[in-house]
Amino acid sequence: MKQLYCLIFILVCHTASIVPATAQVPAPGSPVRIGVLPHGTYNAITDVAGVRVGHKTLIRGASVRTGATVILPHGGNLFQEKVPAAVYVGNGFGKLAGITQIKELGNIESPVILTNTLNVAAGINAGISYTLAQKENQQVQSVNIVVGETNDGYLNDIRGRHVTEEDILDAIRAARSGAVEQGNTGAGTGTVCFGFKGGIGSASRVLPKTLGGYTVGVLVQTNFGGVLEIAGVPVGKELGRYFLSDQLNNPADGSCMIVLATDAPLLAPSLERLAKRAFMGLAKTGGIASNGSGDYVIAFSTHPSVRIPHRSGDTLHTTATLFNDDLSPLFLAAIEATEEAIINALFAAKTMTGRNGNKIEALPKEAVISILKKYNRYQP
Amino acid sequence: MKQLYCLIFILVCHTASIVPATAQVPAPGSPVRIGVLPHGTYNAITDVAGVRVGHKTLIRGASVRTGATVILPHGGNLFQEKVPAAVYVGNGFGKLAGITQIKELGNIESPVILTNTLNVAAGINAGISYTLAQKENQQVQSVNIVVGETNDGYLNDIRGRHVTEEDILDAIRAARSGAVEQGNTGAGTGTVCFGFKGGIGSASRVLPKTLGGYTVGVLVQTNFGGVLEIAGVPVGKELGRYFLSDQLNNPADGSCMIVLATDAPLLAPSLERLAKRAFMGLAKTGGIASNGSGDYVIAFSTHPSVRIPHRSGDTLHTTATLFNDDLSPLFLAAIEATEEAIINALFAAKTMTGRNGNKIEALPKEAVISILKKYNRYQP
Amino acid sequence: MKQLYCLIFILVCHTASIVPATAQVPAPGSPVRIGVLPHGTYNAITDVAGVRVGHKTLIRGASVRTGATVILPHGGNLFQEKVPAAVYVGNGFGKLAGITQIKELGNIESPVILTNTLNVAAGINAGISYTLAQKENQQVQSVNIVVGETNDGYLNDIRGRHVTEEDILDAIRAARSGAVEQGNTGAGTGTVCFGFKGGIGSASRVLPKTLGGYTVGVLVQTNFGGVLEIAGVPVGKELGRYFLSDQLNNPADGSCMIVLATDAPLLAPSLERLAKRAFMGLAKTGGIASNGSGDYVIAFSTHPSVRIPHRSGDTLHTTATLFNDDLSPLFLAAIEATEEAIINALFAAKTMTGRNGNKIEALPKEAVISILKKYNRYQP
Amino acid sequence: MKQLYCLIFILVCHTASIVPATAQVPAPGSPVRIGVLPHGTYNAITDVAGVRVGHKTLIRGASVRTGATVILPHGGNLFQEKVPAAVYVGNGFGKLAGITQIKELGNIESPVILTNTLNVAAGINAGISYTLAQKENQQVQSVNIVVGETNDGYLNDIRGRHVTEEDILDAIRAARSGAVEQGNTGAGTGTVCFGFKGGIGSASRVLPKTLGGYTVGVLVQTNFGGVLEIAGVPVGKELGRYFLSDQLNNPADGSCMIVLATDAPLLAPSLERLAKRAFMGLAKTGGIASNGSGDYVIAFSTHPSVRIPHRSGDTLHTTATLFNDDLSPLFLAAIEATEEAIINALFAAKTMTGRNGNKIEALPKEAVISILKKYNRYQP
Repeated sequence: MKQLYCLIFILVCHTASIVPATAQVPAPGSPVRIGVLPHGTYNAITDVAGVRVGHKTLIRGASVRTGATVILPHGGNLFQEKVPAAVYVGNGFGKLAGITQIKELGNIESPVILTNTLNVAAGINAGISYTLAQKENQQVQSVNIVVGETNDGYLNDIRGRHVTEEDILDAIRAARSGAVEQGNTGAGTGTVCFGFKGGIGSASRVLPKTLGGYTVGVLVQTNFGGVLEIAGVPVGKELGRYFLSDQLNNPADGSCMIVLATDAPLLAPSLERLAKRAFMGLAKTGGIASNGSGDYVIAFSTHPSVRIPHRSGDTLHTTATLFNDDLSPLFLAAIEATEEAIINALFAAKTMTGRNGNKIEALPKEAVISILKKYNRYQP
Repeated sequence: MKQLYCLIFILVCHTASIVPATAQVPAPGSPVRIGVLPHGTYNAITDVAGVRVGHKTLIRGASVRTGATVILPHGGNLFQEKVPAAVYVGNGFGKLAGITQIKELGNIESPVILTNTLNVAAGINAGISYTLAQKENQQVQSVNIVVGETNDGYLNDIRGRHVTEEDILDAIRAARSGAVEQGNTGAGTGTVCFGFKGGIGSASRVLPKTLGGYTVGVLVQTNFGGVLEIAGVPVGKELGRYFLSDQLNNPADGSCMIVLATDAPLLAPSLERLAKRAFMGLAKTGGIASNGSGDYVIAFSTHPSVRIPHRSGDTLHTTATLFNDDLSPLFLAAIEATEEAIINALFAAKTMTGRNGNKIEALPKEAVISILKKYNRYQP
Repeated sequence: MKQLYCLIFILVCHTASIVPATAQVPAPGSPVRIGVLPHGTYNAITDVAGVRVGHKTLIRGASVRTGATVILPHGGNLFQEKVPAAVYVGNGFGKLAGITQIKELGNIESPVILTNTLNVAAGINAGISYTLAQKENQQVQSVNIVVGETNDGYLNDIRGRHVTEEDILDAIRAARSGAVEQGNTGAGTGTVCFGFKGGIGSASRVLPKTLGGYTVGVLVQTNFGGVLEIAGVPVGKELGRYFLSDQLNNPADGSCMIVLATDAPLLAPSLERLAKRAFMGLAKTGGIASNGSGDYVIAFSTHPSVRIPHRSGDTLHTTATLFNDDLSPLFLAAIEATEEAIINALFAAKTMTGRNGNKIEALPKEAVISILKKYNRYQP
Repeated sequence: MKQLYCLIFILVCHTASIVPATAQVPAPGSPVRIGVLPHGTYNAITDVAGVRVGHKTLIRGASVRTGATVILPHGGNLFQEKVPAAVYVGNGFGKLAGITQIKELGNIESPVILTNTLNVAAGINAGISYTLAQKENQQVQSVNIVVGETNDGYLNDIRGRHVTEEDILDAIRAARSGAVEQGNTGAGTGTVCFGFKGGIGSASRVLPKTLGGYTVGVLVQTNFGGVLEIAGVPVGKELGRYFLSDQLNNPADGSCMIVLATDAPLLAPSLERLAKRAFMGLAKTGGIASNGSGDYVIAFSTHPSVRIPHRSGDTLHTTATLFNDDLSPLFLAAIEATEEAIINALFAAKTMTGRNGNKIEALPKEAVISILKKYNRYQP
């Protein structure tokens, strides 16, 4: 610890009164309120201006339950205008592509692609095809594609590797701003979370104007377990379904991909710090980052002033970024948005039957609402 | 993610029924129950056999409110019989001594010492003196001392650097097994947590016999902030005291030192994974690891078979350790023990006045109990 | 630093006389002697018993100059019998697949595949196909494939992505022990090193019996630059071709993939330390790990006693490994084998013309021999 | 690897002719020329404008052979005007204080202090006293002191912990720009390198104006071993004194502290990359980073535009820094300056007798010159 307590005191005086406890709006679909900060227009990663999300959902026959989700940090040529970025590895039992170059250079130069564990290669190929085909990129011979994954093999015939390069290009083409489709969609089509149907979730938080008014948006691909808590309510325990409980089908294993966007002007080191806080949001849902989980947070800033041109006419890169001392409010935003994005995924996902007749029930909403009421947290 | 969902399913069948939801006992002093695993005899780090804890508390005049707490991994010569160890850095704004050698060699060879930010040097000197003086160590010219800290400068005249080498040696001499004194004691004498009086806390978790029966014990030095939750109940919000709220004196800045012991046979890489989970326990209390926090987890194993002799007659180091696949229950234990240790610190600490007449109130227990009742979580 | 100097002194007495300065044999094809330790039978990574190397070389028409090289840590089912492993990132401007799982779990469960930058996906797909097809792996739904790359785009039509999954499966099928084909072969077909033709290189070192008699073998895919030194002789400077010199065509950019195998019984943390030393060997050739380089070392141990079964009937993993204190001789071996493997690649590679008529000359051996003679280091 | 080879080609054309091979001047005292870049006025870390170096040398009686060396990044108040900084851990068997805060925040706010292994605490205390006493720092309650060390216990009564806080304050007060005293001075008083007398060494490199004209300066505290090479000449082997040789007293154990300063405008991530290259310079001297070594590189930028004010009136931190693509020349400079600084230490140090009558000979200069002549590298 470092600071003069009395200095902090003054700082707090300065920033006081800006987050009225009633500011936040219930998340669409979710009957609880999480945290103390308000969310943005869509309560989604797309509340960060410029961010686009696209899905390709594959539900075919009895056994194909998979897909892809892509996040575009901005609408331009990502290779020519890279965004500062970082990755935090919560638990590394995953196949994330692209990590070392993000860590070395502090940027992302491609769409962020999510799919299933055995289709990462399709994601890489699609990202390369997308990049090479852009007309400004005719001379490009190298591009770092970021592909995350979770394993949907319980519901999906994952060994069939059904997601193709073309499917992922479809997802890229489908990417748009605005409301984000959640639940059994895209890369979340076949995932399982706390023993219930998981999927894609998203949420956002907005800082008070006096703290910069920045937005933090999160999108998650939920496929993990533990001891479920919703807004701190012990739902998993109440339902008798949790890791190590005496009910079947409650593994903690699985993974969670977390993508965090912000319009705050930050370079890679600060983004890595935000990414770590996103993982704290996962902890608050009762996730335990089990041995078998591939939990990663990919964080980037969309602020125009921090973009990194592939080739610049300038000698120096001039940026104006937040001081370390001003990051803590963003940390809180990252925690809250991630926690809520995961809960939103659970509320959005629907019961699904797939491979071998395997069936995963959706979160039992009525029972959950009863539990929330029991613990006086029902806030529709 | 990796595992066959159906394989996990089988695993869960195998381990089922072993954690009855009613197994755990309320923590002494704490009116809530946290998590699903039972704690050990003392609900403290000392439930891990062999671990000793010692305090030296300095309360002198109007301005000295500080001290030291030491944790001895075992009762023998730590330099001659090192323990496997790891460190996880939650947020590195701190002065932790000894980290790189733990990371490089995977062991600890000294007491783990906690004190205030400006007395780390006293801790190092005490650790060296302690080690050099042991009779088997007459030729030792190098020893890695582990010293963590938090900043008690609001209540304590920290610039006076009042903790001496002798004070810390006193704490080492005072170290013993059994119940752990908590609250305003030792290195927690002058600390502040979520705007209330913090201090030393401890807790433990015990795995079912069928999962090995291992114990995980945690001791924390709490001096941090955020948006307090107790067993998921939004206590900070209810009290109107939280980071970014409109009340004064609710900084998120500060630090948390977490020391985790286990008797499970683990080497450094697995211990680092446990350490990371301990930090997830901090997240569940509403801590945000603010910019100014020095949050570290130091984890070690006391299992006799994994100890590392300083000089061995053997050519090879034979160890029998847990497989990665069997670590997840320990992860849950680490999360729960850490969360509860922090809450225990808050319930144990008492109102204190110190430097410049600065006063920090204890957690208002009656109000908190009312809140816990409101949310149906009061379980004394 | 740690050790009693006098204790070290004794240790050195104990280990004295075991490495006669004349022990090593000139590398096949290389007119210099590097280091002080002897090499193994083939002076190649295959001197580590069980390791197999396979190449697939693609030279087609005017523009295809690429390929793949695979290293199999042992001849069995790698998924069922994983090997302890680590990765060191020298410079992370590369697309290495598989790194986070190696770091999290400390093992490799697939062939190590090297190819060009834009064909990493083909490598992943081939590794998955190879693994899924093995009969013991019929239930496998997740496998971590390790694929490294360098960029052969100056000589090769890299945008054409000519390496197919089938090509890489061919390389796996071709893998064998014994002498390793070097130079313009496999993944080294189109690479460039210090402005000259690079390619695959390999070398090994064997410790004296009194130090365990362990072997360290290295295979490199050389595609980087800097200021070339051969056995310390300033060859690049003498030839007037080096990074920042007044000659054209001497970029430092590029990459080097380094794969290190040893039969010493080591777990991941020790292997990471060896990996880091391999990178020191690269430094000794005059490589500078330029901004644009993707320099990685992948290290694994083949010792049967440290293998990690995918599913074990045992509760504990019993291993007998070297103490930290005994690793330094292996560090020296890793440095020397890597330095020599790079030099061997240069001596083995031949002039090649490729894409757009681009031509890269082989190292001018006669001129180099003259330089070596000038500096009294010619030792054929 | 990433870049278009043809683009690199163009880049090289652009930067050609700027480093004439004859540009560099022999290092004072060293009879060899290392690398291809010229050094600065003093061939020392103080060639980076503003950097100050101070020593306190303790030679008392038969057994005290130790001291301290401090490096001040600039002449102002370091706490109020922090410098961007990074640390690279070559091998972590050391007691470096201050590392995690540098890594978290990317800056240094105190003098960099070097001393012996058991006097790190004296260094911390001195750094705190120095900081607290500055008049702008009257409210400071926390400061991160950076203290590195090597073990001089063969010549020095290290267990006596003879370096006091006052000694280190003396070194701070003695700090000045200009020529740097090297050899048996300050923190290098009692150190041993490659079995010969080590000590403090320094060197610098200056980039051509067309590449920015930046300076990189390095100061080393040399106390390590391996197989000595001087400008690539196998001096250790020729003298028959090297790690694993049949001569006594050639341990590889020991440590090297490396401090790197530059006036290039760089933030922490780029500085970490430079720091890693400095370690490559150590590799070129034949160091092996043995198990027992504590090898660290601390790198900082002195450029005024990247300084970090402790408290700023600005909302944003505006900086103008080098692009990643322009760092490679600085990498080369870091490698060369470090290699030469180590060699300079060896040439500057003199034979010393200390504790228990232990004697370490200086590098035998006449024999070394003969060897350099044998290999045609004698360039006085």
